[in-house]
Amino acid sequence: MSQPDNKNRMWSGRFSESTSELVAAFSESVSFDQRLYRQDIAQSTAHARMLARVGVLSTADADAITAGLEQVRDEIERGAFVWKTELEDVHMNIEARLTEIIGDAGKRLHTGRSRNDQVATDIRLYTRDAIDRLLPLIDTLADGLLGLAEAEADSVMPGFTHLQIAQPVTFGHHMLAWREQILRDRSRLVDARARLNVLPLGSAALAGTVYPLDRHYVAEQLGFAAVSENSLDAVSDRDFAIEFCAAAAMILVHLSRWSEELIIWSTPMFGFVSLPDRFCTGSSIMPQKKNPDVPELVRGKTGRVIGDLNALLVLMKGQPLAYNRDNQEDKEPLFDAIDTVTICLRVYAEMVPHIVVRRDACRAAAAKGFSTATDLADYLVGKGLPFRDAHHVVGAVVGYAAQHQRDLAELSLDELRRFSSAIEADVHQHITLEASVSARKTYGGTAPDQVRAAIARARRALAQRSPR
Amino acid sequence: MSQPDNKNRMWSGRFSESTSELVAAFSESVSFDQRLYRQDIAQSTAHARMLARVGVLSTADADAITAGLEQVRDEIERGAFVWKTELEDVHMNIEARLTEIIGDAGKRLHTGRSRNDQVATDIRLYTRDAIDRLLPLIDTLADGLLGLAEAEADSVMPGFTHLQIAQPVTFGHHMLAWREQILRDRSRLVDARARLNVLPLGSAALAGTVYPLDRHYVAEQLGFAAVSENSLDAVSDRDFAIEFCAAAAMILVHLSRWSEELIIWSTPMFGFVSLPDRFCTGSSIMPQKKNPDVPELVRGKTGRVIGDLNALLVLMKGQPLAYNRDNQEDKEPLFDAIDTVTICLRVYAEMVPHIVVRRDACRAAAAKGFSTATDLADYLVGKGLPFRDAHHVVGAVVGYAAQHQRDLAELSLDELRRFSSAIEADVHQHITLEASVSARKTYGGTAPDQVRAAIARARRALAQRSPR
Amino acid sequence: MSQPDNKNRMWSGRFSESTSELVAAFSESVSFDQRLYRQDIAQSTAHARMLARVGVLSTADADAITAGLEQVRDEIERGAFVWKTELEDVHMNIEARLTEIIGDAGKRLHTGRSRNDQVATDIRLYTRDAIDRLLPLIDTLADGLLGLAEAEADSVMPGFTHLQIAQPVTFGHHMLAWREQILRDRSRLVDARARLNVLPLGSAALAGTVYPLDRHYVAEQLGFAAVSENSLDAVSDRDFAIEFCAAAAMILVHLSRWSEELIIWSTPMFGFVSLPDRFCTGSSIMPQKKNPDVPELVRGKTGRVIGDLNALLVLMKGQPLAYNRDNQEDKEPLFDAIDTVTICLRVYAEMVPHIVVRRDACRAAAAKGFSTATDLADYLVGKGLPFRDAHHVVGAVVGYAAQHQRDLAELSLDELRRFSSAIEADVHQHITLEASVSARKTYGGTAPDQVRAAIARARRALAQRSPR
Amino acid sequence: MSQPDNKNRMWSGRFSESTSELVAAFSESVSFDQRLYRQDIAQSTAHARMLARVGVLSTADADAITAGLEQVRDEIERGAFVWKTELEDVHMNIEARLTEIIGDAGKRLHTGRSRNDQVATDIRLYTRDAIDRLLPLIDTLADGLLGLAEAEADSVMPGFTHLQIAQPVTFGHHMLAWREQILRDRSRLVDARARLNVLPLGSAALAGTVYPLDRHYVAEQLGFAAVSENSLDAVSDRDFAIEFCAAAAMILVHLSRWSEELIIWSTPMFGFVSLPDRFCTGSSIMPQKKNPDVPELVRGKTGRVIGDLNALLVLMKGQPLAYNRDNQEDKEPLFDAIDTVTICLRVYAEMVPHIVVRRDACRAAAAKGFSTATDLADYLVGKGLPFRDAHHVVGAVVGYAAQHQRDLAELSLDELRRFSSAIEADVHQHITLEASVSARKTYGGTAPDQVRAAIARARRALAQRSPR
Repeated sequence: MSQPDNKNRMWSGRFSESTSELVAAFSESVSFDQRLYRQDIAQSTAHARMLARVGVLSTADADAITAGLEQVRDEIERGAFVWKTELEDVHMNIEARLTEIIGDAGKRLHTGRSRNDQVATDIRLYTRDAIDRLLPLIDTLADGLLGLAEAEADSVMPGFTHLQIAQPVTFGHHMLAWREQILRDRSRLVDARARLNVLPLGSAALAGTVYPLDRHYVAEQLGFAAVSENSLDAVSDRDFAIEFCAAAAMILVHLSRWSEELIIWSTPMFGFVSLPDRFCTGSSIMPQKKNPDVPELVRGKTGRVIGDLNALLVLMKGQPLAYNRDNQEDKEPLFDAIDTVTICLRVYAEMVPHIVVRRDACRAAAAKGFSTATDLADYLVGKGLPFRDAHHVVGAVVGYAAQHQRDLAELSLDELRRFSSAIEADVHQHITLEASVSARKTYGGTAPDQVRAAIARARRALAQRSPR
Repeated sequence: MSQPDNKNRMWSGRFSESTSELVAAFSESVSFDQRLYRQDIAQSTAHARMLARVGVLSTADADAITAGLEQVRDEIERGAFVWKTELEDVHMNIEARLTEIIGDAGKRLHTGRSRNDQVATDIRLYTRDAIDRLLPLIDTLADGLLGLAEAEADSVMPGFTHLQIAQPVTFGHHMLAWREQILRDRSRLVDARARLNVLPLGSAALAGTVYPLDRHYVAEQLGFAAVSENSLDAVSDRDFAIEFCAAAAMILVHLSRWSEELIIWSTPMFGFVSLPDRFCTGSSIMPQKKNPDVPELVRGKTGRVIGDLNALLVLMKGQPLAYNRDNQEDKEPLFDAIDTVTICLRVYAEMVPHIVVRRDACRAAAAKGFSTATDLADYLVGKGLPFRDAHHVVGAVVGYAAQHQRDLAELSLDELRRFSSAIEADVHQHITLEASVSARKTYGGTAPDQVRAAIARARRALAQRSPR
Repeated sequence: MSQPDNKNRMWSGRFSESTSELVAAFSESVSFDQRLYRQDIAQSTAHARMLARVGVLSTADADAITAGLEQVRDEIERGAFVWKTELEDVHMNIEARLTEIIGDAGKRLHTGRSRNDQVATDIRLYTRDAIDRLLPLIDTLADGLLGLAEAEADSVMPGFTHLQIAQPVTFGHHMLAWREQILRDRSRLVDARARLNVLPLGSAALAGTVYPLDRHYVAEQLGFAAVSENSLDAVSDRDFAIEFCAAAAMILVHLSRWSEELIIWSTPMFGFVSLPDRFCTGSSIMPQKKNPDVPELVRGKTGRVIGDLNALLVLMKGQPLAYNRDNQEDKEPLFDAIDTVTICLRVYAEMVPHIVVRRDACRAAAAKGFSTATDLADYLVGKGLPFRDAHHVVGAVVGYAAQHQRDLAELSLDELRRFSSAIEADVHQHITLEASVSARKTYGGTAPDQVRAAIARARRALAQRSPR
Repeated sequence: MSQPDNKNRMWSGRFSESTSELVAAFSESVSFDQRLYRQDIAQSTAHARMLARVGVLSTADADAITAGLEQVRDEIERGAFVWKTELEDVHMNIEARLTEIIGDAGKRLHTGRSRNDQVATDIRLYTRDAIDRLLPLIDTLADGLLGLAEAEADSVMPGFTHLQIAQPVTFGHHMLAWREQILRDRSRLVDARARLNVLPLGSAALAGTVYPLDRHYVAEQLGFAAVSENSLDAVSDRDFAIEFCAAAAMILVHLSRWSEELIIWSTPMFGFVSLPDRFCTGSSIMPQKKNPDVPELVRGKTGRVIGDLNALLVLMKGQPLAYNRDNQEDKEPLFDAIDTVTICLRVYAEMVPHIVVRRDACRAAAAKGFSTATDLADYLVGKGLPFRDAHHVVGAVVGYAAQHQRDLAELSLDELRRFSSAIEADVHQHITLEASVSARKTYGGTAPDQVRAAIARARRALAQRSPR
């Protein structure tokens, strides 16, 4: 295989032969790391200003660099920038073009810096920006759930355990359960953001540098809350990428659970909800099909984000300090996790307010499956039976009702009393769906009043919400 | 297969045949969830007291329950308790024994509670207790690293990138890099603890309960900072287990990196460190072997904790609300992650202070590999060359030195000047190991003064450290 | 921490201090590798016989070893054997006890062998034995599916895509789909068995040995088809464990899919199947509950086997040759995968023949959801329309029917002809459930005749099945 | 968000509103599945020919389709084809263009087929093609290892266990160990190929079809060895993708192990090998650096392939039959695994023959670390000591030698005899490196004669190798 000229490579001095073309193709990263260009330019600008401030660079050079970088960014955003694989990565592509534009001052930009701390800084900035875009998406989604919960605060549906009908709940209550999940996700992202918001720049290759850098100034320019404490750690740490992916995997696991429910609820057998046509697609062969594609795709994407997390954990396992080339492999899984969690949250945020609840079907289903059996047991406890004995009595009643294919509320007082003389004429008012739901008014319970109280608490909390 | 009698099972009322023996063996959890007994007894005690407080239970019953549970705990800790598989899980085993001891009052304990919220509470308590044991272990380990860093603040060793010699650093600096990793781990555990410290009890099976429970009182008794907001979410949420395992996986990834370094440093070719015999074992066939078993085993255990994390993510993927029996599978991976991370931190905490640094070998290695080439480039920048040009000159010098098998410091001024006339008589004082290390005094850099400053900052922070 | 006496350890000669108690506890494996005792004794017996055969051991010594090992096995199986943690692993425990029983001959057993090739041999034997137990389980399960398929070859149910009703299929056809999955699993296990059935013993620590071992003789004694080609590879290879876990993970993924369907089919809304009470359990709070625990637990266990696979891949990643202590961590995930896949197959093999199909519910559901829309399109193709146009016409018909809440078969000829004049009086006979199902008689299709033909092919193949 | 016109979508008949633009972007697959175009055209051609053969299509239509598809392929390969996101996927893009070119005949192509069986066929073909490209790559790599093994059959190096020097081996022997690993990988790919080489086409959406398809004819045209047995299984099965990724993950795990060794061996402290400059890159800051990028990147890519495997396992977990939209997510992980394993094998195949072995450094290292201690123990066994006693004696000798910083071969006979009177004058000839290596001549051992015998066996096997 022929060997491309190495002259363009900034490290060619020590080498007696050029990189193999195959190796060049194998090891380039510019095809995927070019998306870091904004962050790279921001940090180079801050770095140049700082170098001028501490006297390592002339003000004229720093000004030329700043202007040149602006031009580069403009070229990139206009599509006029030519990315070159032989320049390996986003950093060298931008620096090479900068030097073309402004000459020798461009060669001075890398003073006191290495690609090791440079890329570490870029990815942190990129991940932080991603989180800052995700938080409002989560807020929109959570607000959508709150609205849906309010609209359906009284809509009775079966609550399931083991996908068997357990006790009646309200649809609004169920939506608030989803909301709790996504709020925990939000809180994890906020924590991850705080932990990653530390500037690695100034760590140079691994040991720090001989130049009198003002790292705190750079941190301030770039919005970092602190500077890293140890240069070896700073260039080799990818915890923040793993932590982000772990948070993203959890978000997808949550969305996969909602998806599973929407898919099941959308079957004709359940018919609890209907998703608007614009969120569904059809079949190339079966003309009647209307498929819940959005939840299915979201459920399917769970695997890839778990895979991304896994990829990064495996990547870092057993790596000695400090930077190793393995780390170049940190970007694609991280980017994929960011892209996936972003689009999934966007489509859910758009879809959730438009979920159509089929209240009649929900209510009809709740009337099946002896969903108020616990209420009958609780009624017996109220009459003095120990809970365990009451449970046993009701088990027998259910067995009888199932055998006669009737629901509990359809049994006569006489029939009920065969199982316990503690059952009296007031029993039927305790075992309707509405009675069952209304009675569950413990804090966080499904009683419509509790659901509305939870919504009110949420609205109060929202009024005080900080952006992160 | 014969069928065991179901009479012992608390839910047998509705069933017309007994559980298959195979299914009973397949579905029991008491063999592994019995380790929750302390947490289960603590919550039952708090639940009983609360029930009495709100008038659902008589004080006499609550007192009997409290005393009975104390007896049960005592029996368990004495090894006198007989765990029964047919009673399925830790909860029913304890309740059944309690009822044996105190009679009907025992059957009233489960009022207003389900195993769903009961187990959710137990695991949270257990995980919280585990974190509370891990934090001091991490502190001990971090302190050990601080001590080692202080002792070796001036010990020069090669700093590596790509496992090639990059620039000289100090051993102390390297130990502080490890410490940064574990401190981030600590911070993740503290965040996870805060997020999990929410009481699910009172959510009952899924919908809340009809009894006027005082959930905040129970939370206070058990040290929870809040009560859960939504009953469906509370019984089905296992985020905290996943989040713990993610934090644990990161800890093991960090320890795997230290292990890798210790293993490489312990080879005769490196010889940078020696591990005391008591942390090593030998070979059944090769009499001379002294193997770094502790780091190897720790590195090996990384896989299992990543596997545990994975298991839990897969477990929860696509589960509809609320509780499904799948969730029984949350315990073993969580317990395994807790056990593994605990023992690994313990052995590292014990071993780290006893790592013997072979300073001569470290220093000799640092003198190899042209580790001060960057210093020569920085020297040329100081003489006015743009960094990129300086880099290119030094690349050529290194090529020359490699060809003649000498280090940079061994080249004469004349030889050096062949590559750049900017090189002058003062060059040699910039390219010794000590000069190189001392010059890297940016914040977080490897200069011994910086290392000592970092240690001083750490000690000041320690003086203010809160337990979590 | 105090230090236990190292005298018992066979490698203590070179060590100046004893293993730390914590390290001893950390590094022991006998608590989990004792289950290899049978395989260890089998290989030691074969090794001793071979050593005698080639003259390295006297026949008297070999006889003493053989008899001693039989006694050891007997002690273990009687529960009379005392496992000692300070003897580290199953190998040293057995050898030490053997030496107690027979004296110096016991010390000669390890000649020409290392624990590295010893454990590699034991685990291969163990995994092979596991596969040999799994294959008949799979056969029983596949036969159960065949029987169920035969019984339900004519039972119409809705076929789903996207969990929406797609086209009618038969329950028998669905069971044969499950069977195909498990037969592929069988074939993977058979391939894995062939690949692992290679003897590592004789590779010694890593380099082979100086003794004139007859490796082929040992292979023959132990049923291995070949001896390993390279000693470095043989002691460090754990491919077979990974390959087994990959096959096991696939089995669990398949069973998780069946489980998902059984769980959904068991809801009152579907009601397609009923699982016998002996495969279900109830609720501690809700007296009416009958939960599909077996499928739920199996679905939940999928995560742990995927986690096991993951653990082993991570374990081996980046390990230099040859044996490293990390490898001790291969056993627990492998054992867990073996145990889990075995019990899951056992319970499914027992349960499948007892699944009760609710034919009426299945048929009623198939009549919903316009399941014969494709048949109407195919009818139009038969009348000369291009498929794409036919598809479009039927889409409009379905829209009309949905709006009027009727199924296709309930529309009058006049109504149908509004959408296409190609529709004629014979249309209704093409769009019944039975017509739809019967018409799908391509090879592998759902027509009852095809299902029966597939069953006949399966029975013929069974008649020729080899055990592996 | 505005809604694009649905007219282009082939399933629009039943829908009352168009797909949301966001959903269209979310659910399209053409951006990544267009790489299936060759396979899609091949299967459509075979399908059309078969339809004509069985009389469903006119010969004229089939000819038009064949010619039209050729034109489409040509347009794609010339870059003249316009891929349209609103046409969703590769299948509809090609069919739509075909219909533009040839008119109504194009609309008839999809008769008796669904995208479900269509895509299942495409991916199988694509994966099969990938395997057929990988096998020769593996062969080249294995041959490269064989050549290197032959060249270094006598080169002594330290064999490691626990990365501690264990016993001397030869470099050639080590290369043959690598070769064994990759040959097992080859064999797994061959098995996977056989298992996937089954035609799903003809299963239609899920139930088979009403047209009299000749599936065996299509299978023959496309090189499939069989047709699928069950239509529900055929459209929902992704085992082959998982099995491929599992095999790919194993390959990467192997390559990660080689990489780890090359990285360690390339450090100045080891200096065992040197990689040609064209396989290395330098540093932007440290002019002397020559980094082993290829092995580092390969090691790093291990994580992503393990992640891909994981993604697919999670994807399929718990999916009910038959096709669900989740499955669209099967492609990107599979493609990524194919691409990654292909490029990694290519760079290793190119690099391996050019690894430069530093024989002196290898030999010098082997002389360290008491690597012949086992030989001394074996010598004592030869003199009649039980192995365990001999082991203990040598342990003490090593302790003495370590204390005096000499190797075993440097101890005098007198010194040696202090530890055992069985040691005699012939001892030194047994404990040289060459003696040690040559003595390990068990089958598969490291003795140069054995290595050469293994090479000869390999060459004989190669002469009979079939391409798959």
